Amino acid sequence: MRSKGLTVLKIGGSVITMKDKALTPNNSAIKRLAKEIAGSRLSPLIIVHGGGGFGHPIAAKYGIAEGFKDEKQMVGFSKTHNAMMKLNMLIVEALLDEGLPAFSMAPSSFIITRSGRIQHIYRDPLEQALKLGFTPVLYGDAVFDYDLGFTVLSGDQILSRLATELNAERIIIGVDVDGLYTIDPKIDPRAQLITCLTLNELVNLIDKIGGSRSVDVTGGMMGKIRELMAPAMNGINILIVNALKPNYIYKALRGEDVVGTKIIRE
Amino acid sequence: MRSKGLTVLKIGGSVITMKDKALTPNNSAIKRLAKEIAGSRLSPLIIVHGGGGFGHPIAAKYGIAEGFKDEKQMVGFSKTHNAMMKLNMLIVEALLDEGLPAFSMAPSSFIITRSGRIQHIYRDPLEQALKLGFTPVLYGDAVFDYDLGFTVLSGDQILSRLATELNAERIIIGVDVDGLYTIDPKIDPRAQLITCLTLNELVNLIDKIGGSRSVDVTGGMMGKIRELMAPAMNGINILIVNALKPNYIYKALRGEDVVGTKIIRE
Repeated sequence: MRSKGLTVLKIGGSVITMKDKALTPNNSAIKRLAKEIAGSRLSPLIIVHGGGGFGHPIAAKYGIAEGFKDEKQMVGFSKTHNAMMKLNMLIVEALLDEGLPAFSMAPSSFIITRSGRIQHIYRDPLEQALKLGFTPVLYGDAVFDYDLGFTVLSGDQILSRLATELNAERIIIGVDVDGLYTIDPKIDPRAQLITCLTLNELVNLIDKIGGSRSVDVTGGMMGKIRELMAPAMNGINILIVNALKPNYIYKALRGEDVVGTKIIRE
Repeated sequence: MRSKGLTVLKIGGSVITMKDKALTPNNSAIKRLAKEIAGSRLSPLIIVHGGGGFGHPIAAKYGIAEGFKDEKQMVGFSKTHNAMMKLNMLIVEALLDEGLPAFSMAPSSFIITRSGRIQHIYRDPLEQALKLGFTPVLYGDAVFDYDLGFTVLSGDQILSRLATELNAERIIIGVDVDGLYTIDPKIDPRAQLITCLTLNELVNLIDKIGGSRSVDVTGGMMGKIRELMAPAMNGINILIVNALKPNYIYKALRGEDVVGTKIIRE
């Protein structure tokens, strides 16, 4: 399927959950974002969200990302998935309340990885959902892995791979900062927002960070931007915006000007 | 994959939900069955459960089984799935509480139908789950359909198809009666339990009921027993038991003698 005009929207876990409290949704952010997304009337659209305080603490406790080593992890693997399902259901229900035909899809049921990288996405039901006008809502999940037994699959990897496979037109990434900075803004107040980055500049940035072993100047967004290489190379326009600021996601979805970091092929 | 010794267990919706109250789980039955299933220490095992008061009322309200006719159904389709996810999570969590590594799998994410019949089951993650020793827990669901757009897929069809594809050894079906009767026991007190039925007798029974257009002597189990033809023909042993009676499911899983209806190839 060539999805003409498909947008893939990522909502970071730090946006929709409370940072310092496990299993606590940020209900006001969820409600506001549901209004913004439904209000944009954008279709076709796929949403992928992160785990924040839902998935990560349980996954970390049981060492899920490192793979299957001990039977004691099995219950933890399942609990990680359940926690993500609960968060996902809150998002989907908030969207349904706004009249958007969102539909929950469980990554662990149709995506399988090898050594932590996506091996197959069985996209058939998801593509049927898109064709009918649904907005599939996926999430970072505890998934099965051919080599590791199981692992943690980030929403960022799902986003990157799905957008590439479906030839999406745009990726919009909603995070808890304004975008990429010249230096980590949480450490150095001289940090300046990078408003536009070409693919070459993105590669250089990743090289620089990878090589220096210094503080991650992306403010913890290194994993995120690594995943953006493939879609950027495929000519998919990428925009990173602050989803905690009201109407930023709405404007981004509508294609209106908004503060953030654009990543373009050239 | 040839699953040697695989058991597929169906738990009817009428067993785990309250008949006369929408969205109300039968918590004591769920807890007891979780103990019985975990206590049997049976592996490999797949569980499929029905919807009862969770899935059916919403699916009926929006006419989901009849397929996509109107955009207004879309929110209802998604809500049907959400209701089933909620019920599923209760079952999975009850099993996890008993130490059984159950894992929720969402049929709508990896099964697609054509005119209401299963066209593809993308079984890869499910088989990986089984291989690791997990007990996948599936459910009747609102699913996407190539011809109808979407429809309702019964747990019975999933059970039948999965058991056949995976060459299961046994199917155990937990319902709210003791098994199949010579006549509907809710109508005629002379009804006698059929303790054993060959494939030929099963075919004759379906013919008789289908032809007579009279009262369904199976007590509403016609849809269920129709789905049992394919696995019975494939030599899979089938046992229908009363899951509301304590220890019946436990004994059935353990292969111990228990009141019920056996269906065998010959």
